[in-house]
Amino acid sequence: MKAVVYHGPGAIAWEEVAKPTITADTDAIVRVDAVTICGTDLHIWKGDVPEVTDGRILGHEAVGTVEAVGSGVKNVRPGDRVLVSCITACGACRFCREGRYGQCLGGGGWILGHNIDGTQAEYVRVPFADTSTYPIPSGSTDEEILMLADILPTAYEVGVLNGTVQPGDVVAVVGAGPIGLSAIVGARLYSPGHVIAIDLADSRLEAAKQFGADITVNNGSEDPIAAIASVTAGLGVDVAIEAVGVPATFELATKLVRPGGHVANIGVHGEPATLHLEELWTRDVTITTGLVDTYSTPTLLRLLTSGQLDAGRFVTHHFALGQFMEAYDTFRDAGETGALKVVLTPGS
Amino acid sequence: MKAVVYHGPGAIAWEEVAKPTITADTDAIVRVDAVTICGTDLHIWKGDVPEVTDGRILGHEAVGTVEAVGSGVKNVRPGDRVLVSCITACGACRFCREGRYGQCLGGGGWILGHNIDGTQAEYVRVPFADTSTYPIPSGSTDEEILMLADILPTAYEVGVLNGTVQPGDVVAVVGAGPIGLSAIVGARLYSPGHVIAIDLADSRLEAAKQFGADITVNNGSEDPIAAIASVTAGLGVDVAIEAVGVPATFELATKLVRPGGHVANIGVHGEPATLHLEELWTRDVTITTGLVDTYSTPTLLRLLTSGQLDAGRFVTHHFALGQFMEAYDTFRDAGETGALKVVLTPGS
Amino acid sequence: MKAVVYHGPGAIAWEEVAKPTITADTDAIVRVDAVTICGTDLHIWKGDVPEVTDGRILGHEAVGTVEAVGSGVKNVRPGDRVLVSCITACGACRFCREGRYGQCLGGGGWILGHNIDGTQAEYVRVPFADTSTYPIPSGSTDEEILMLADILPTAYEVGVLNGTVQPGDVVAVVGAGPIGLSAIVGARLYSPGHVIAIDLADSRLEAAKQFGADITVNNGSEDPIAAIASVTAGLGVDVAIEAVGVPATFELATKLVRPGGHVANIGVHGEPATLHLEELWTRDVTITTGLVDTYSTPTLLRLLTSGQLDAGRFVTHHFALGQFMEAYDTFRDAGETGALKVVLTPGS
Amino acid sequence: MKAVVYHGPGAIAWEEVAKPTITADTDAIVRVDAVTICGTDLHIWKGDVPEVTDGRILGHEAVGTVEAVGSGVKNVRPGDRVLVSCITACGACRFCREGRYGQCLGGGGWILGHNIDGTQAEYVRVPFADTSTYPIPSGSTDEEILMLADILPTAYEVGVLNGTVQPGDVVAVVGAGPIGLSAIVGARLYSPGHVIAIDLADSRLEAAKQFGADITVNNGSEDPIAAIASVTAGLGVDVAIEAVGVPATFELATKLVRPGGHVANIGVHGEPATLHLEELWTRDVTITTGLVDTYSTPTLLRLLTSGQLDAGRFVTHHFALGQFMEAYDTFRDAGETGALKVVLTPGS
Repeated sequence: MKAVVYHGPGAIAWEEVAKPTITADTDAIVRVDAVTICGTDLHIWKGDVPEVTDGRILGHEAVGTVEAVGSGVKNVRPGDRVLVSCITACGACRFCREGRYGQCLGGGGWILGHNIDGTQAEYVRVPFADTSTYPIPSGSTDEEILMLADILPTAYEVGVLNGTVQPGDVVAVVGAGPIGLSAIVGARLYSPGHVIAIDLADSRLEAAKQFGADITVNNGSEDPIAAIASVTAGLGVDVAIEAVGVPATFELATKLVRPGGHVANIGVHGEPATLHLEELWTRDVTITTGLVDTYSTPTLLRLLTSGQLDAGRFVTHHFALGQFMEAYDTFRDAGETGALKVVLTPGS
Repeated sequence: MKAVVYHGPGAIAWEEVAKPTITADTDAIVRVDAVTICGTDLHIWKGDVPEVTDGRILGHEAVGTVEAVGSGVKNVRPGDRVLVSCITACGACRFCREGRYGQCLGGGGWILGHNIDGTQAEYVRVPFADTSTYPIPSGSTDEEILMLADILPTAYEVGVLNGTVQPGDVVAVVGAGPIGLSAIVGARLYSPGHVIAIDLADSRLEAAKQFGADITVNNGSEDPIAAIASVTAGLGVDVAIEAVGVPATFELATKLVRPGGHVANIGVHGEPATLHLEELWTRDVTITTGLVDTYSTPTLLRLLTSGQLDAGRFVTHHFALGQFMEAYDTFRDAGETGALKVVLTPGS
Repeated sequence: MKAVVYHGPGAIAWEEVAKPTITADTDAIVRVDAVTICGTDLHIWKGDVPEVTDGRILGHEAVGTVEAVGSGVKNVRPGDRVLVSCITACGACRFCREGRYGQCLGGGGWILGHNIDGTQAEYVRVPFADTSTYPIPSGSTDEEILMLADILPTAYEVGVLNGTVQPGDVVAVVGAGPIGLSAIVGARLYSPGHVIAIDLADSRLEAAKQFGADITVNNGSEDPIAAIASVTAGLGVDVAIEAVGVPATFELATKLVRPGGHVANIGVHGEPATLHLEELWTRDVTITTGLVDTYSTPTLLRLLTSGQLDAGRFVTHHFALGQFMEAYDTFRDAGETGALKVVLTPGS
Repeated sequence: MKAVVYHGPGAIAWEEVAKPTITADTDAIVRVDAVTICGTDLHIWKGDVPEVTDGRILGHEAVGTVEAVGSGVKNVRPGDRVLVSCITACGACRFCREGRYGQCLGGGGWILGHNIDGTQAEYVRVPFADTSTYPIPSGSTDEEILMLADILPTAYEVGVLNGTVQPGDVVAVVGAGPIGLSAIVGARLYSPGHVIAIDLADSRLEAAKQFGADITVNNGSEDPIAAIASVTAGLGVDVAIEAVGVPATFELATKLVRPGGHVANIGVHGEPATLHLEELWTRDVTITTGLVDTYSTPTLLRLLTSGQLDAGRFVTHHFALGQFMEAYDTFRDAGETGALKVVLTPGS
């Protein structure tokens, strides 16, 4: 079969590899029907994620059809159509029992396209299939379900739920890329009073408006602190969601929040930030970090089915699997192409 | 001035009474600009509420203008336009400190139109004015604000928040009168997957659809348990909200709920219900009761201002204060008149 | 091997039966090293639990040594010493993923000694062994661990945690049998201000004092409502835990609780109770029911190991397995024998 | 009367000043019966708190007797014996209504001995007396009640409750000065499995043991990360409480915590810390900061009265008011004197 293989910093290729086989009795082999590229894959491509080594197949998001299962798989059968989640869960360790699958101690967590071969391929081996896949509800399309593999549960769990967004809240989302837009969509499920998107690019702020922000601030030209003070009678926002992953945006988030408010970090950080405890120690602030657990995936599937969640709107570009390198370029050059999420389906 | 005065079961009249004066330094005298009638007032009229005695002015909801304040009032000034809430709060007792104003131990709670003279009058004395009134935000109408005096916080706190409605939930609302419709509106703030209204009257079920129910069940002709089983794969609803106040509807609510679900009682009950513990003891059910506290009033005001809450839609009929008896008849005969909430404003 | 076999109402016997074998790949066969009798077993003996049919081996609590495991068992190995919990969990269904194992939809829940053969035997087959057993920490005795199979997690989860006991609370425990005593012990972990035990038998109230109640009320001779009013300035208790299972004690619990308080039902009920909604509707009361989930078992094991929990004190009588009928008699006649929990270990 | 007056960095004196008078109708004048010195007072003395200006009377903790009250005071009467809390609450603003008194927007918060004259005097004016004082329960001593003015609610709210300590948890307390010892005492109310005290001074670690730590680590000679790894199977602690207020200890706390754990900052910080987001972003960590609100004071009073809390043990030294300078020296030189809390009572 063919797959996207990593060969060191800057080097990935769509090339022929061996088709995966069942290696543990809880495995499933899934034929990939739809797959996408994550911002994290771009980091891997650049060489920022040293655990990913030469020869690794990338990708941790897919919708597919089960082709074979190990003898210990109970709830998934060949022919089943499933969502392959970015998080794999052993289902038995302490953290899995608490729903904290991203921290799985039994061999799961974020492993696909990271520690083991991933989904950017014609077939993928999915460990712990019973607790790491979700049946696809009828009446939904593959590409909208695919958005529930990573981006939507990440923004919902790590941004919206960790930030405890509540009806009437004023929510600031710092960064209006795909994950920030997902946070806006997720926050809107709780009927906040205002969702304020902050970004340096007017094009992303325009997208933010379409995804549900009612106020936008270009922090290249406007002072976000002043803008938020005017909306919140000087108090600050109830929830600030960081969706970039650099020190400056995290520090901004901690300055935007009101006494008693929450800062929910979603961003993937590569270096430390400064925490201004000399100001924050009296301000009753709660700061959270988190890797997605995908415990919310069943909820998001229900919201999709009942029409509360328009997941398909994130998909801007379509490619055949054979065009994977072109898809990577399009996604990497999002500033020019306007790509949010790309979807690849079988074909050349 | 004139006011609606209770003179024993079945006897109320719009008649001349003395204008109220300040009797405690925390009082405010408020000129009534808009007032409504509550279902509870109908119970009082019938004689069901023995604490209400001959000569009492009825009413516990108003929007008005402050005319005078006692020497101890700090935050409310003559000329201020305020919402007079159904709950009065001393602000200092144990329960007020916990936000449980409805249980105030310091002389508050539901007292207006109950233990002291109420709002169905040209003027009303409001005790503990600093902690029992809310400034009216600019850009809103008196009649939409008036819906926040009782019906909306009651349904939101006692139904939606006590019931812990969450995104994706299936919510059943038993009873589609004004309070049930408010519960539907309040539940929708949390993006439930489905809101199922259950009532005996098709006209109320039609209203329920317009207020946000996506499924309706006439339990005179359909079996609600079967209907809900088909929506929830046989499990039952996540949250069942009781909005009638008779044993049969409460018992129905306890049968509709899934293992681990919530039954939130809003209904005003006059007699005991049967609790089928022989079935419920294993089902992990949480049942809540509650009097409104109005701790959510600031949140609801923000939601109104930001456009998340359309409170004005509850108002079906308008009257002048001089037509109060006609307004009572219209509200009592809601089955024929289609009245949800009536609003009265100064005039004859 | 030998086991306690049910042969219809009133008829149980310690008799020869076939030794269990592995029937599913997730099974373990466990040699029973210590086993006890639950109040529920007495109900079964009397014929109150119709799902239990002729030929069923009773018992749902054990400590044992794994003898064999199915091919799909990952985390348990022959020779491991384990706690066999009263609740079996498939680990993959919706409720297991939420930690609500008692409601398992995948074939688990309370099945041992109920729908399948149980632990009152020399060997027991344990389904879903990976998610239904717990390794025994070093330094603890079998008999104290055995108390974590049912009675302690039941009282802790369904009584203390559902009741949300907090430091400084006044807690009433209605019924001072073994489960009530467990609730007292569990409540004490949260440093309540007072724990008030209510029972009809002075001997049980004496035991309650030894287990941590600081106030006792014999409701045969004293009025518990008056007694509690005097402790709580007339407000009522923060948490009332029902640990009997008859309508009168449940109704008492609802009368003892303060506005805003919790009634946590642990009792196994055979008939409906009356819920005085005409009084409770305004009182902001939360009532919970629940079957144990054993999600707290890891916590309780940690508390045992660190010396916060003295589980061994519940054991009043010891028997050899060959004396099982004598043990049943002793446990049934607790009023005379003073039995709280009996422990049986191999031998004749 | 006489009082401790601040005259710029390094200069405080016990000197004659005017006795306070009622300036607002919600004021009380309280005769000081017992008063103590806080670590914050030492910071003020050094000049670290620029809002405190020349002429200010210091002190924000007292037990006293009400001498006079303003006309608007409802619940406090001359002759009442009261606890004067470090936090003053208007009782009506948004934050006071949420129990977040430390953030009071209506003129309260930490103002005594900070923005207005304080308690280190023979008499003190207490604004908003109804919502800023607590009646002293019978059967308790002034000096144990005095510990509830600041140190115990601060450690309990900002450390234990913000950190969400639960039964069985492993809790690390970084810093074993008076506030760290209070956190240990507060954590013990929740029956943690282990409380690990970390400090550089063996004498303070010895005190930590006496106050309830079962493990101590001198991080001058031992590696606390390794020590905690050995207790927690390499995972880290459930809750890390920072009780020092310098970057190094805060950063240590963030390294000690397990995935999914809490870091609760109590320390008063004068400079920023480094937040290692490049490690923490995946670890599901919650970090909280906070000023005490004293919402827990009624709970702590109940715990004291019921014998769950031994508050008096913090008092190591007694002085007469006339010896205030000697008391300051003793408290400042705690390393030599072993002072935890000093208590001053009327006399010379």
